[in-house]
Amino acid sequence: MTAPTRSHGRLTIRPSAEPRDLISERPDLKDAWEAKVVTLFPDAFPGVLGASLTGKALQEGLWRLTPIDLRIFGEGKHRNVDDTPAGGGAGMVMRPDVVHRALRMAARGTPQDHRRWPVVYLSPRGRPFDQRMAERFAEAEGMTLLCGRFEGVDERVIEHHGIEEVSLGDFVLTGGEIAAQALIDATVRLIPRVLGNQASAEEDSFSDFLLEHPQYTKPAVWEGRAIPDILLSGHHANIADWRRDMAERLTKERRPDLWRAYCEKHGRDPDGDREL
Amino acid sequence: MTAPTRSHGRLTIRPSAEPRDLISERPDLKDAWEAKVVTLFPDAFPGVLGASLTGKALQEGLWRLTPIDLRIFGEGKHRNVDDTPAGGGAGMVMRPDVVHRALRMAARGTPQDHRRWPVVYLSPRGRPFDQRMAERFAEAEGMTLLCGRFEGVDERVIEHHGIEEVSLGDFVLTGGEIAAQALIDATVRLIPRVLGNQASAEEDSFSDFLLEHPQYTKPAVWEGRAIPDILLSGHHANIADWRRDMAERLTKERRPDLWRAYCEKHGRDPDGDREL
Repeated sequence: MTAPTRSHGRLTIRPSAEPRDLISERPDLKDAWEAKVVTLFPDAFPGVLGASLTGKALQEGLWRLTPIDLRIFGEGKHRNVDDTPAGGGAGMVMRPDVVHRALRMAARGTPQDHRRWPVVYLSPRGRPFDQRMAERFAEAEGMTLLCGRFEGVDERVIEHHGIEEVSLGDFVLTGGEIAAQALIDATVRLIPRVLGNQASAEEDSFSDFLLEHPQYTKPAVWEGRAIPDILLSGHHANIADWRRDMAERLTKERRPDLWRAYCEKHGRDPDGDREL
Repeated sequence: MTAPTRSHGRLTIRPSAEPRDLISERPDLKDAWEAKVVTLFPDAFPGVLGASLTGKALQEGLWRLTPIDLRIFGEGKHRNVDDTPAGGGAGMVMRPDVVHRALRMAARGTPQDHRRWPVVYLSPRGRPFDQRMAERFAEAEGMTLLCGRFEGVDERVIEHHGIEEVSLGDFVLTGGEIAAQALIDATVRLIPRVLGNQASAEEDSFSDFLLEHPQYTKPAVWEGRAIPDILLSGHHANIADWRRDMAERLTKERRPDLWRAYCEKHGRDPDGDREL
């Protein structure tokens, strides 16, 4: 018998038709980007992240996912994690001591510098998550995500840990878990080799403040609607021009805010029209 | 033996310690709000939506979730759902005929009027999802959500079905599933009786363009940090004033865009300060 081959700290991967437990049996690639998620619903992970390209990359050890069950850090026999809001009001607030213990556990073995290891609380009060933030998180060594529930987390633990508040958007969720999954998905796909075709990530929306041009595929005519001739012309320069024009039109029409940012970057007049 | 009691079309619910299959065995409340989700990953549902308050409400039949597997509408032996983009480029595009068949299936038994039954494609090109949109969706009878993958969906099927494009934010996800779950979560919690305490939903951020004030709970002093005295004063009017002031400060500091909308609504000068 020979010992399993190892290279670069990666466990040997044996092909198998058996579904794998993506969390406990993942191959452990040293230095792989890692998401630690403090949550009352650890079973919700990896969730959708275990499917498709992010799931494949998780199996391949290109990134790691470590849910941390907040409940086990709870107070007393019932492991309470929340209590009534000081000053009154509806709902419950997550206790600072309980969250602190979970965050201390999450911090084990991670750099203290939040630039190398961001600690994020998903909250509608936070700075809106965007592609640039995903790029910053992807460049870190990993990150810790705190998922809130109820009316939120005691302010003192946010201050004490220097936690960055990040919002998924101007809407309210019942908890931070779905927001955490969105943030992780957007971040993980920027890690090299996670997307099969790196070009895809680079051509995506928001890399350049533009919405994506319309896409078409087979059949050439469907329900009386034909693919625009130019896309079938084979003239690559014209196709590229058409796509850029469509992307600009769409952005101008749907997202004046992005359009202004784009024009500023490219020294264009936001109210001017370019000839097609 | 007596027949099980029925009322208002709801199946009798028997208490049980057994975990339930939330999709196939859910009690079926007639007229309950329904989300139909066209996806290549039907197993990803209900996901986090099956936990906590949204999961409890799903079990109680306060809303319904129907994943529709896009794959079974695919082309040929391999049930292909995508093909290369017309005009070239990276990635794959979802075929209009395949998506059309799935949407036709989803449309069965639903009103044609998109105000009564919105049909939404989750896409970064869409209008940004916000709390007002969640309110509109919650007032409909239900909705159909199309989850994209790859480089997106053929434009013609979007036009043909009059699909509304909705974006979760200015970032790119590997697919629409997590975005769909966020949208459903934000919408379902607005359905009467889903949140145990309706007051919670009404006090939340964005109902009035303001971010939420800081929250505190026990212990009164933690790691040398005390809960602000005013919150322990028992003086409800002062507490309400303090909370509003904190919410306004936070909004002004973190979200000038929301702050301007708030000031406009309340006839305030965005650059003026109110005395504390």
